[in-house]
Amino acid sequence: MSPSSTKKPHLVVIGSGSGGLTAAIGLSRLGRRVVLVEAGDVGGDCTNLGCIPSKTLLDRSARFAATGRNAPGDAAAVLAEVRAARDAFRDHETVEVAELPGIDLVRGKGRLVDGGVEITGPDGTRRVECRRVVLATGSHPRRLDIAGLPDDRRLTNAEVFDLEAVPPRLAIVGGGAVGVEFATAFARLGTAVTLIEVGEQLLPGLLPEAAGLVAAELGDLGVDVRLGARAASWHDGMLALTGPDGRATAGAEVGADRVLLGVGRIPATADLGLAEVGVEVDEAGHIVVDERGRTTATGVWACGDATVEGRHHGTTHAANALGRRIVADIVSSGRLPGGWLHGGGRPLHPSATFGHPETARIGHQSPEPGPDVVRHRVDLAATDRGITDQVGAGVLIVDVRRLSGRIVGATIVGPRAAELVSIFALALRNDLPLHRFYGVVWPYPSHADAIGRVVDLHVATTAADPGGNARAWLAGRWRALRCRHVHHP
Amino acid sequence: MSPSSTKKPHLVVIGSGSGGLTAAIGLSRLGRRVVLVEAGDVGGDCTNLGCIPSKTLLDRSARFAATGRNAPGDAAAVLAEVRAARDAFRDHETVEVAELPGIDLVRGKGRLVDGGVEITGPDGTRRVECRRVVLATGSHPRRLDIAGLPDDRRLTNAEVFDLEAVPPRLAIVGGGAVGVEFATAFARLGTAVTLIEVGEQLLPGLLPEAAGLVAAELGDLGVDVRLGARAASWHDGMLALTGPDGRATAGAEVGADRVLLGVGRIPATADLGLAEVGVEVDEAGHIVVDERGRTTATGVWACGDATVEGRHHGTTHAANALGRRIVADIVSSGRLPGGWLHGGGRPLHPSATFGHPETARIGHQSPEPGPDVVRHRVDLAATDRGITDQVGAGVLIVDVRRLSGRIVGATIVGPRAAELVSIFALALRNDLPLHRFYGVVWPYPSHADAIGRVVDLHVATTAADPGGNARAWLAGRWRALRCRHVHHP
Repeated sequence: MSPSSTKKPHLVVIGSGSGGLTAAIGLSRLGRRVVLVEAGDVGGDCTNLGCIPSKTLLDRSARFAATGRNAPGDAAAVLAEVRAARDAFRDHETVEVAELPGIDLVRGKGRLVDGGVEITGPDGTRRVECRRVVLATGSHPRRLDIAGLPDDRRLTNAEVFDLEAVPPRLAIVGGGAVGVEFATAFARLGTAVTLIEVGEQLLPGLLPEAAGLVAAELGDLGVDVRLGARAASWHDGMLALTGPDGRATAGAEVGADRVLLGVGRIPATADLGLAEVGVEVDEAGHIVVDERGRTTATGVWACGDATVEGRHHGTTHAANALGRRIVADIVSSGRLPGGWLHGGGRPLHPSATFGHPETARIGHQSPEPGPDVVRHRVDLAATDRGITDQVGAGVLIVDVRRLSGRIVGATIVGPRAAELVSIFALALRNDLPLHRFYGVVWPYPSHADAIGRVVDLHVATTAADPGGNARAWLAGRWRALRCRHVHHP
Repeated sequence: MSPSSTKKPHLVVIGSGSGGLTAAIGLSRLGRRVVLVEAGDVGGDCTNLGCIPSKTLLDRSARFAATGRNAPGDAAAVLAEVRAARDAFRDHETVEVAELPGIDLVRGKGRLVDGGVEITGPDGTRRVECRRVVLATGSHPRRLDIAGLPDDRRLTNAEVFDLEAVPPRLAIVGGGAVGVEFATAFARLGTAVTLIEVGEQLLPGLLPEAAGLVAAELGDLGVDVRLGARAASWHDGMLALTGPDGRATAGAEVGADRVLLGVGRIPATADLGLAEVGVEVDEAGHIVVDERGRTTATGVWACGDATVEGRHHGTTHAANALGRRIVADIVSSGRLPGGWLHGGGRPLHPSATFGHPETARIGHQSPEPGPDVVRHRVDLAATDRGITDQVGAGVLIVDVRRLSGRIVGATIVGPRAAELVSIFALALRNDLPLHRFYGVVWPYPSHADAIGRVVDLHVATTAADPGGNARAWLAGRWRALRCRHVHHP
């Protein structure tokens, strides 16, 4: 377990998930000697328990459903295939990382100590001296106690990919991205899925009307969606539900051979020696970082789920993005101007889920837009491509400032949502107002063509409503008067 | 057949395909009274013989193939389903157009006459006086004579959707978009397809390496791709092939119960009275138009396949785009500055095909880029999403000017290509150089994420090659010296 290089490393990266790999690979390519410490599998949650196996499962389950087969044995073969594909991916990635010239991959658990990192591995504990450390230790799934539920019937994303057979009845607790994606996959594999969410909608943060479409589509797929419900206790294959306040409802129980939890993440920041070296964490244990990934301790950076940024954006792309900023900050010795780091601030994070249907969003859309914002909707099931492809339900919702045409945010439910939101990611990052979309020719018949309809709607709406424009102007003036430092478009 | 309005129309639109409908609907919404003349079915080729039924066929054939069924009777049912879906789409569109308040839909054949349009329909001929006419008469498939081939075995896109059964063996002549899409669909339906292209690659205009991927993928689907081959003669179910020069090759023949032609389009501009009113056409019969859709005759505009623009961009989106510029030009009485019409010039047309695999491109990429252009390639089968989804083959090829980062063009083969090219359509339209992509966070694991890799490659390539940068600078100066009016980035 000793680093193969005899030279002192420039830095140690603890954790080889998305964020840690991005930082380690980026820095090694720029000539830095990196010791990369990993206590588990290379690739972290994304490769082993997250994006990679879940997208493989979604892909294979869709293919399985398309065949019209529904024998449990066939479905179990799908699970085995997903596992094999995941392992192959991980093994390939592990070899790739181990072979990178500037990286020493060290197996063990890292801990910050004064002047370096202490690594405890299978062969004992040793100390690596270095002036810079990047923490990328990720997170664990939050475990929920459900009275009466035996451990071997409780799953999280950490165990679900080890299932040898498809459970006949699966209850999923938590209607976020994890819940929606697994509900989709297991429903396609023939499982009777109940999706239980304590809130009033699936996918918290998504516009309620968009979340409503997702619930309806999952219902069409055969998923029993229960909103405003809590999993209270389990007995003999039955899961008893209560309302959100915990009060029992007569007869509210669902069959569940297994219960899958998708109820949030806990940052993996214990036993890292953070307090000893002065790395501050928030009340939930997330490492406090600035836009450059710097923690409160000099020479210590952090990215990914373990950080306060990961608290709100616990995605691989957010971890990667912060990892890249850390590379730039370290290489430039902190002298790179903010404007060069993702345009001078925290970047705009899109989010996407790949269930049935796919969803994506970017920016800030409130359920009720203000008077100076126009909301445009295009029914993606009723576009020409939506019709030819028999898209069951879909919507593109774009909020635009009435006077400036500035895009506030976009929400997409339907095919190719992650690629459609990328169009808005480029536009928002570069402050392109909607009128800069006007001259774009969108390929026909694509789903992107719906964006052209939004442009038409905006021109028609704002041109036809001088009263609304005047009110928007007044609202803007009012904001400016109340807060002179507000930037109003 | 007389217009229902007693008022004189503001204008007549001849042809209710994509371009004509865009112009007619746009102008009627802006208060113009429009007489819309249609000799065939409302919706033109796109709705009846093109995009709509072909994308429906591609969708249904993919679903059919996924089931693993292959009984000819099942495949025939797919054809019937496509026809029914197409007819429903057309009927819906016809009612919608007929009910639009500002539009009089008149059945018949229109012809330009002095001071208006003469319409010959089932009830005779009448004359509509108007000062403005928009020609959107579209095109017909070019028919090729193949010695010995009976008429009832020769198909074009105009007849193929009427097939009652799937031919056991289908030869497709022409490896363009039409040929590639029908080869995909019929191969999925169980037909033994031969795709015959006289040139050296499929999809002329696509980068050869991208076209090579398409040929290989079609081969994997079971399509027999014959490049550099001509269909010479047919006899008793066998189609004899020659080389591109027409010379016979011993034994070069393929089985073909039907032969589908996809060998180009002929503009439908005969019998329109063009010469009489001074509308100029090119040697192939395409109506000469400027960027505003104006023909050489005052008061006559044209868009779509019938025009010189349609000669190069014979797509629905190109027809729509020119139709929109015509609306703007007519409504502004020609006073709208060029800058308001699609950014002051002819727009950039993306193109997309929806075969197996999907392809798309935009901009101008030559097979060998110049010294000041860097070409970046990302293997879309090897991205994380490509691996999870078992993408067989795919590539993203982006050409970027070395010094300015200006994007020259992009080519995509693989999943969601039409949406990915839309990202570049927005960037190219707004002259966003590649470094404006740097701060964009692409959703993971999406296919769009590959664009982030291109940005990384560009930074790495240009930063690591000062010699190449110097040569690029010299090449740019040389261009500037040779042509002082050239805009060099």
